[in-house]
Amino acid sequence: MAESVIQYVLRRLNEIGIDDVFGVAGDYAFPVNDAIVEHPAINWVGCCNELNAGYAADGYARMRGVGAVCSTYGVGELAAMSAIAGSYAEHLAVFHLVGAPNLPTQEGRALVHHTLGNGEFDLFHRMAESIVCASAILTPQNAAAETERLIAAALYRRRPVYLAIPSDVSRAPVLQSAPPVVAPTSDPEALAAATKAVAAALNDAGQACVLPGILLRRLGLQGAAAAFVDAAGLPFATMFADKSVLGEDHPNYIGMYVGRLMGEPVRAFVESCDVVMMLGAKLTDGNSAGGTVRLDSSKNITIDHHRTTVGTKVYRNVEIADLLRQLSEGVSTRAQRTDIRPEPLGPVAGGDQDPITADQLYPRWAHFFRPNDVIITDTGTSSLGLALAQLPQGAEFHNQTLWASIGWATPATFGAAKATPERRLILITGEGSHQMTAQEISQLGRHGLRPIIFVLNNSGYLSERMLCKDMALAYNDIAAWNYAELPHALGCHGWFVARVSSCGELDDALTTADQADNGAYIEVITDRYEAPQMYKKLHENVKSFYNIK
Amino acid sequence: MAESVIQYVLRRLNEIGIDDVFGVAGDYAFPVNDAIVEHPAINWVGCCNELNAGYAADGYARMRGVGAVCSTYGVGELAAMSAIAGSYAEHLAVFHLVGAPNLPTQEGRALVHHTLGNGEFDLFHRMAESIVCASAILTPQNAAAETERLIAAALYRRRPVYLAIPSDVSRAPVLQSAPPVVAPTSDPEALAAATKAVAAALNDAGQACVLPGILLRRLGLQGAAAAFVDAAGLPFATMFADKSVLGEDHPNYIGMYVGRLMGEPVRAFVESCDVVMMLGAKLTDGNSAGGTVRLDSSKNITIDHHRTTVGTKVYRNVEIADLLRQLSEGVSTRAQRTDIRPEPLGPVAGGDQDPITADQLYPRWAHFFRPNDVIITDTGTSSLGLALAQLPQGAEFHNQTLWASIGWATPATFGAAKATPERRLILITGEGSHQMTAQEISQLGRHGLRPIIFVLNNSGYLSERMLCKDMALAYNDIAAWNYAELPHALGCHGWFVARVSSCGELDDALTTADQADNGAYIEVITDRYEAPQMYKKLHENVKSFYNIK
Repeated sequence: MAESVIQYVLRRLNEIGIDDVFGVAGDYAFPVNDAIVEHPAINWVGCCNELNAGYAADGYARMRGVGAVCSTYGVGELAAMSAIAGSYAEHLAVFHLVGAPNLPTQEGRALVHHTLGNGEFDLFHRMAESIVCASAILTPQNAAAETERLIAAALYRRRPVYLAIPSDVSRAPVLQSAPPVVAPTSDPEALAAATKAVAAALNDAGQACVLPGILLRRLGLQGAAAAFVDAAGLPFATMFADKSVLGEDHPNYIGMYVGRLMGEPVRAFVESCDVVMMLGAKLTDGNSAGGTVRLDSSKNITIDHHRTTVGTKVYRNVEIADLLRQLSEGVSTRAQRTDIRPEPLGPVAGGDQDPITADQLYPRWAHFFRPNDVIITDTGTSSLGLALAQLPQGAEFHNQTLWASIGWATPATFGAAKATPERRLILITGEGSHQMTAQEISQLGRHGLRPIIFVLNNSGYLSERMLCKDMALAYNDIAAWNYAELPHALGCHGWFVARVSSCGELDDALTTADQADNGAYIEVITDRYEAPQMYKKLHENVKSFYNIK
Repeated sequence: MAESVIQYVLRRLNEIGIDDVFGVAGDYAFPVNDAIVEHPAINWVGCCNELNAGYAADGYARMRGVGAVCSTYGVGELAAMSAIAGSYAEHLAVFHLVGAPNLPTQEGRALVHHTLGNGEFDLFHRMAESIVCASAILTPQNAAAETERLIAAALYRRRPVYLAIPSDVSRAPVLQSAPPVVAPTSDPEALAAATKAVAAALNDAGQACVLPGILLRRLGLQGAAAAFVDAAGLPFATMFADKSVLGEDHPNYIGMYVGRLMGEPVRAFVESCDVVMMLGAKLTDGNSAGGTVRLDSSKNITIDHHRTTVGTKVYRNVEIADLLRQLSEGVSTRAQRTDIRPEPLGPVAGGDQDPITADQLYPRWAHFFRPNDVIITDTGTSSLGLALAQLPQGAEFHNQTLWASIGWATPATFGAAKATPERRLILITGEGSHQMTAQEISQLGRHGLRPIIFVLNNSGYLSERMLCKDMALAYNDIAAWNYAELPHALGCHGWFVARVSSCGELDDALTTADQADNGAYIEVITDRYEAPQMYKKLHENVKSFYNIK
């Protein structure tokens, strides 16, 4: 029997690494849903709602390189859009499959559910176009070609794509075949010129360093980047959004570069370099440390995804992977040495009865991390408080620094756990963020996954309190939940659950969680205004953070 | 001191009936958030997430005629979009206030959080344009004129509007004033002609009836429509999306018109009429009863919002309110009489130990309703099962039949309860729908509101099981929660909570809930495939429902 449109799509997605599709079933998407549950190598992974499903696919793509979310038309796809936009901002290849009304319905401009009732059926596709790198509405004629185009776009650009299938098209046989689209390669001349220019700039520099960026992880180039750093003998520091992209146990790592907020030796070193190499890193506001980062762009080498800039000269059509390979082979090892080593976050301190202050909390978390942990943190005080925690070998720190949608981390943890059930997953979220998407922990329980979840309860959006004009403003208060009751209410049976408000209780909970053979959920209670040093420093620089003169 | 841009907006929103703004605070929106908490007559009502806040504003607008939701740029506004689109489909005037990055940030194309990192700042506004009837980005120069335009558009069209304010614009003084925009009035000649044509068509008809639509409630025209029905002596039936728009205790009410699904006497009567007057009603798929409604459009009088059609003749620029007024004054009372009376849903039956079947459940709910109740039902088996429940005087039935986004009902109940705390609010939702947005019950508890919540637990999306190709398909299974533990976990203290699986337990819970002076939350457990008669009939008509030949 000829392959159907949806079978073609699923086969190809599976071939590039997708074994699980997150989503919420819906009637217009039934043919897609049917094909997923029938597929021998792809699992349907139901989520509580579409936003959460989108976040889960994002978390999955962080582990696997690709992810997929499936929703129904209108209600479902719109609910997922903020997650898709987040995958765009954060450079993740997420496939959004949308099941649409059948063609007679669309062509007849019928007044059907999940529409605005105005007979228009292309509105939501047009909305999606703003937040994906490519999109298509499949037909039996274009299914192969468009699927190949979308796969190539998602993989080359590491951005989400949108793929809608009318319900009567899903089961129709594919009419035309298409070869996979070949990924663009570097312009050989530009690549050679860029390689030469970068090597020369490094050779001329008395002091140089690398700032590796998150794009390296998205492209699976951490090994290539580490090989280059080794070959060149270059020290590297890391900015916040890029934390842990190269191992923090690497001997060339000098620490986090967070401008004038903290870590003065790193700042002084980086900013006194003759050359700073931005390697797949971007100076977003999250990386500019409240506007306290000062890099002289004329001294930068900026190796972007598809182009490289040395001083004022731009080399276009140069792929970062190709350049890294060339550089690793051709670069000469520097004699440069530095004594700067990452500073630990601080000792574990505080007596058993002491309340949990920031100075006592963040070192404890840092101490808790083990090699190869996947640490997923929501945007807020807790993630910034962990910026300077030095991670053990192979441990990954994930955050959504650019899109910065609070609530992302809980479902993303589910997605990451489905992608890599063998690794230890640690979720650290503020309770305000957690309330956004908390129901998704039910899926972790349902699938027998064993995350370790910390919910930092400081009675509101502390992160916002630190940035707005009055810390006590009512809009940063939130409903008081009994968090420790939540896992059981949501069906997570047998989990270790604790509610801790003293250092001793926290220590006990950490010990138990470390040994638990099931999920763990720990509510960590601190004072309302108990912020880590890093956030206090950001607070002092709030005007430059917001570009206010 | 001169009025600031945001003060102007809030003053005008308050003047048209908005006392509460739902939302989630966010840094780009701080100046808007600040102004709301400082406003003497407007309350900030924080929600768990933006989608829920949008649904709450929708519920509020159903009670008050207008509602407002406030979100931050990017992450927040995109998360709310499915709710805004729902308000569009369902004809609700919801104001979406978005706090955007300041102008230097936008003009500098800065790489800041909550953006895609591509320097583009108008993307999300352009996305919103598809799902609102008007939008504006405010400046000190245009603030007054644009706010007036948006208010007029929202009120005239009863659709949502989008209003973004860069953070440095919010506090700037308004530079130019603007008078309120006058709403369009009917073309006098067209109105007179339409009135004459409608009256003539009714006079010529031996048998006629009215199908009143939800637009009447949105426009506050229930009284005017009832006056017309009284004056004309016309019987009326109601379609599902329009349920209870005119009182089901009205002597002219003959019952629900659900095509060939159920209620054969009503169908036979309506379809044998010489004239059927669609009064602000639309033949959406939700109203077409699985394609079993058969109305001959050549015999219809269709009174739309801004135009009226009699046979093939269209009278444009005729406002429904004006036409209703003219008709009530000029129409002659018909001699027509009908013996058809609404059929009750069935007697309350079943012994104490009996499991809760559909036949036993829906009549119990119908019996439970009291005059002036506000009954909010999520899309699914439970809402359709209540279609034929005859409601007591003043009771309102709310559903999101056209947009049909499951999960809407829980936050909408919160919004409706904030709007009318003095009325009894009853939420009836399936557990699959509830999982989407369940955290919002925490706000009901936080605000001391006292809804009566029924969560129908039938182990999955029964509504979808009834429509897809195999009822047992895994994508309609959901995580098993311990619902009865949820209110306390979410901070709803002192609520009456029950978990019932027999008729006797249900009866006891209904009695207690009826007398409770706090919130009530009742999990109603039925068999996995226990569907109401109406849904079984829809299942039989699944092909015509989906326009499949």
